[in-house]
Amino acid sequence: MKTHLACIPCFFRQILEGARYAGISPQLQKKVMDEFARAIPQVSLRSSPPEIALIGYGILKKVNADRDPYKAIKQKSNRLALKLYRKLKRKAEHSKDRLLKAVELAIAGNIIDFGAKNNLDINDELKKILSKEETFVSRRKLFHYRSFKKVLKKSKTILYLADNAGEIVFDRILIEEIKRIYPEKVIYVSVKDKPVINDALMEDALFCGVDKTALLISNGADAPGTILPLCSKEFKRIYMKADMIISKGQGNFESLSRARKHIFFLFMVKCPVVAEETGRRLGDIVLLDNRENGPFRN
Amino acid sequence: MKTHLACIPCFFRQILEGARYAGISPQLQKKVMDEFARAIPQVSLRSSPPEIALIGYGILKKVNADRDPYKAIKQKSNRLALKLYRKLKRKAEHSKDRLLKAVELAIAGNIIDFGAKNNLDINDELKKILSKEETFVSRRKLFHYRSFKKVLKKSKTILYLADNAGEIVFDRILIEEIKRIYPEKVIYVSVKDKPVINDALMEDALFCGVDKTALLISNGADAPGTILPLCSKEFKRIYMKADMIISKGQGNFESLSRARKHIFFLFMVKCPVVAEETGRRLGDIVLLDNRENGPFRN
Repeated sequence: MKTHLACIPCFFRQILEGARYAGISPQLQKKVMDEFARAIPQVSLRSSPPEIALIGYGILKKVNADRDPYKAIKQKSNRLALKLYRKLKRKAEHSKDRLLKAVELAIAGNIIDFGAKNNLDINDELKKILSKEETFVSRRKLFHYRSFKKVLKKSKTILYLADNAGEIVFDRILIEEIKRIYPEKVIYVSVKDKPVINDALMEDALFCGVDKTALLISNGADAPGTILPLCSKEFKRIYMKADMIISKGQGNFESLSRARKHIFFLFMVKCPVVAEETGRRLGDIVLLDNRENGPFRN
Repeated sequence: MKTHLACIPCFFRQILEGARYAGISPQLQKKVMDEFARAIPQVSLRSSPPEIALIGYGILKKVNADRDPYKAIKQKSNRLALKLYRKLKRKAEHSKDRLLKAVELAIAGNIIDFGAKNNLDINDELKKILSKEETFVSRRKLFHYRSFKKVLKKSKTILYLADNAGEIVFDRILIEEIKRIYPEKVIYVSVKDKPVINDALMEDALFCGVDKTALLISNGADAPGTILPLCSKEFKRIYMKADMIISKGQGNFESLSRARKHIFFLFMVKCPVVAEETGRRLGDIVLLDNRENGPFRN
């Protein structure tokens, strides 16, 4: 999707949040904001939001000497989510429609996000997930589960674009459910190559045991989304080969909503711009088949 | 007060909001944002937030050929608030402490603000005011009413810095109450000289009948607050002469919190930065004596 003007204030908020997380001095924080402000007149709103946010995160990274300010918080998310693994698993197993429940849980896990939200209390949020998902059914308007099942059935190779650390445990539940039904499917799970916000890296995916059920790959980039021209050749090869893409999170939706591949976007609506773009409401859980839904494809 | 880094995203949000209100094309809206972004590296965080916001509103004004995009909404606020006049008056009159009630109502009127809030539904907000003020007592921590009364009693000349259109009807209630107790006091009410957001202008003050109870003056400026160096000589003369300043709204607080005059700030806390600065919570109603309270004076 294109960037909306309303994304600009939000970029500044996110970059500042990142700078604070990085623990750099207020002077350096201001410097990061200034550099990003200088870039704004150069950006085109035809770019997707993650393409513009990337500029800000790039500035921050340079100032912060390539450190990973979210490392500790990612590890904490992983540990907390892993503790829930058995509970989540049982939830899926005891459901009438196990696949649907696994899809819902995977989307619920998308609540673990530091880009769109400030001051996230992981414990609180995870508790909320488990209570909230009971009410998800009522928020499932335009939920393309039927086509998801259909496309899943006929797809041999699936590329699953992971989003955040911690959340990836929820992804594992869904992937295991898919593997249980279709053991023959080849499922790749891609993670970011280098740190960006709390996005999952290879170490997070390994720590959360995703390698036990899928083939892990890096996408070769460090954008808060999937910006294909920045991804590695190897990743693009698998992306092109895949019969179905399962894409997690708003960042991946924002960067891939105009893509030609058959993609199912799974995410929670976390900002008014994406709500407007998809015709959903803030907080809605979305399972969106890009072949079924036209209006957002700009 | 100084500008916080967290104000920067908010400036962009406000300027965009203003540009949308102005009804200019998305291209021009982007141009306004770009121009403002170019200014950011030049601004010092030692400036107060209204000083920086003013740069943005100045850009917008130039692009918008000095039109007043909020004119209609200001007129609507005035009309709606005037309709409440009798009801507000009765509320004050039937209270045990009429002055206190009038102070509370004046602060409640500060809810009418388009700078800090998006998509304000005036009708809804005004209804909320009248229901909400019943609960104000519980939110009145650090409410410097006692010193307000004391200073009011001994002040001969009072300067009342108005904030928004519509809200000025609520100010009128308070000023009338002061005049009822102390008919001999000289009370000036200052409004902005030229349009900025929905701040009250002379025409709003006249329409709302404030001239029936106080001496109306323009402050000679169009900043979203009171930036003394930008105000007219005449205004500064009255400001210096006044024994007591009653200052309405966050913008005036932000721009005058470091002033030497004896000022009572009346406002609702509308953003986390001012909440932090004053040790209050979002939504709190504040009556703050700048001689009693030290921590915010930076």
